[in-house]
Amino acid sequence: MSVRPAILDRYYGAIEAALRDALSIETQLGEILRYHIGFADGGAPSSLGKLLRPALVLFIAEGLGGDPDAAMPAAVGLEFVHGFSLIHDDVQDRDEVRRGRPAVWTKWGVPQAINAGDLMQAIAVRQGLEAGPASAAALLAATMEMIEGQSLDLSFEERFVDTEAYLGMVDKKTGALFRCALRLGGLAAEASDEVLDRLDRLGVCIGRAFQIQDDLLGVWGDGDVLGKPTASDIRRRKKAFPVALTHARATTEDRAELERVYAGDAVGADAVEWVVGLMERLGVRGEGEAAVGRYVQEALDLVDAIPLAEDGRDDLKDLIRFLARREK
Amino acid sequence: MSVRPAILDRYYGAIEAALRDALSIETQLGEILRYHIGFADGGAPSSLGKLLRPALVLFIAEGLGGDPDAAMPAAVGLEFVHGFSLIHDDVQDRDEVRRGRPAVWTKWGVPQAINAGDLMQAIAVRQGLEAGPASAAALLAATMEMIEGQSLDLSFEERFVDTEAYLGMVDKKTGALFRCALRLGGLAAEASDEVLDRLDRLGVCIGRAFQIQDDLLGVWGDGDVLGKPTASDIRRRKKAFPVALTHARATTEDRAELERVYAGDAVGADAVEWVVGLMERLGVRGEGEAAVGRYVQEALDLVDAIPLAEDGRDDLKDLIRFLARREK
Repeated sequence: MSVRPAILDRYYGAIEAALRDALSIETQLGEILRYHIGFADGGAPSSLGKLLRPALVLFIAEGLGGDPDAAMPAAVGLEFVHGFSLIHDDVQDRDEVRRGRPAVWTKWGVPQAINAGDLMQAIAVRQGLEAGPASAAALLAATMEMIEGQSLDLSFEERFVDTEAYLGMVDKKTGALFRCALRLGGLAAEASDEVLDRLDRLGVCIGRAFQIQDDLLGVWGDGDVLGKPTASDIRRRKKAFPVALTHARATTEDRAELERVYAGDAVGADAVEWVVGLMERLGVRGEGEAAVGRYVQEALDLVDAIPLAEDGRDDLKDLIRFLARREK
Repeated sequence: MSVRPAILDRYYGAIEAALRDALSIETQLGEILRYHIGFADGGAPSSLGKLLRPALVLFIAEGLGGDPDAAMPAAVGLEFVHGFSLIHDDVQDRDEVRRGRPAVWTKWGVPQAINAGDLMQAIAVRQGLEAGPASAAALLAATMEMIEGQSLDLSFEERFVDTEAYLGMVDKKTGALFRCALRLGGLAAEASDEVLDRLDRLGVCIGRAFQIQDDLLGVWGDGDVLGKPTASDIRRRKKAFPVALTHARATTEDRAELERVYAGDAVGADAVEWVVGLMERLGVRGEGEAAVGRYVQEALDLVDAIPLAEDGRDDLKDLIRFLARREK
């Protein structure tokens, strides 16, 4: 088990207060947004999530010599971009549970869930605008990229893609908000273009390491605990990294069989076992772990090239290793 | 038949070009947004709609001495706020037709329609930001108000409201974008706070006149042409202005019957006839027309209090009368 990184705790209380403040809206949609973020019933903070992205904004802002308070509206805005995407994602995927609680659409219906997500997007950008036009523009750019990534991911339901195309989607769907977090921090500290460019590449590496690790967990779960693959992503026929790699590496015959399995309405237990077996024969798990390791290493090297104090670098490295090693 | 007001034609070509430019996105979502706005298949402009709101922005900007070109990004942004709301509205209401063509969700599915609306909202605000932070803030405020109005309107499915509560919803759902159009024009011309306040009230009056007229058409259609009520809003059990007024004016007995009719799954032909008969006995149509007339008159008086040139006032009055007299 990883130890919870210091960055996540340092700003938690301040972010929580700012989120609560931004959501003090006396309408039903306000109530829905507070529930979604985790403030319902007096606000049990356990359902608030890690608040990872806003914490990154504030950490980078402060670490590069800026004022974290000035970056707070942008940090809150970024959490709301993430939050609105989750409300709409759950509608799109008909996922009924979010962070262990009923998803918004299951409690208030699809139409109100669409409204709630729309409102949260607008509040997000309004927060960004409070931090200045450059922060608002960065939030909008990240929002647009994330939506394009979500759209690409949907289109993968209809076809197999290679790992390069898959990672291109990940850079948008997952990477855009990490890059935006780092950029918003850099903007608040008036970082040079050179530093902003390094932060951008750091965001790409974090996004890829985070997502590939998540995808590996989607097949092998927390193997050390359960002792066997959970394969939930295979049962859901999700075209994540392992299956993209498998498709690329398989023989013509196996590839045809893989396509047949994924073309069906449901994947039976035998087929799941066959797919996992194929992945293991092809060394997909090891290759995935090696990819995570490469992106983590590149990220750690980039941290050394960013003008942070020594203990700030250590904290950021802890966070990167934590994100690449999450259990499910 | 009303003559098409000059304001709608004056800026049409320039707005069309700016919309096309803002939507030159080489992804599937770009294709969806161009289709929705009316640019698909080379762009038959007949499906573009009236472009009423952006035309109002540019007209007010120019009429008050500002530069309409500088206001163009904000005008385009406002059309996109309207456009994104229509994509999501059609998903929410499961309406299959928009401007005589299949709605986005019927062609690309609900998940991509949600993405397309989300993207259009972000593009809208990015356009606003090009015109300056004040324009972006005005667009965001209007977006939030419109969404709250949409949410209120949904909640009316569960209950009857009086005309005051109904008009409060209309001020948000319909009025917010008219007020925003006038405000964006005023901001581009650096109008005084006094003028901005008058423009704001003018937007309220236009929104109410427009919506009540629309609601009357939802029951009586274009009575002069068809000779009998179309009553489409009654068949759809829409809680629009006429039924709010009917509920308020009816005897206890009729009110109970009205509630019974609207509580059912479908409204049969006999029930429709009964509701229309009740409305006519209670003078609802005449009272609705009188309300439209009052808001139109207040709007015309406000136009005289805004520092426009004489022929500009005439053009704006023509537009207001046109909006309050539309046929279906």
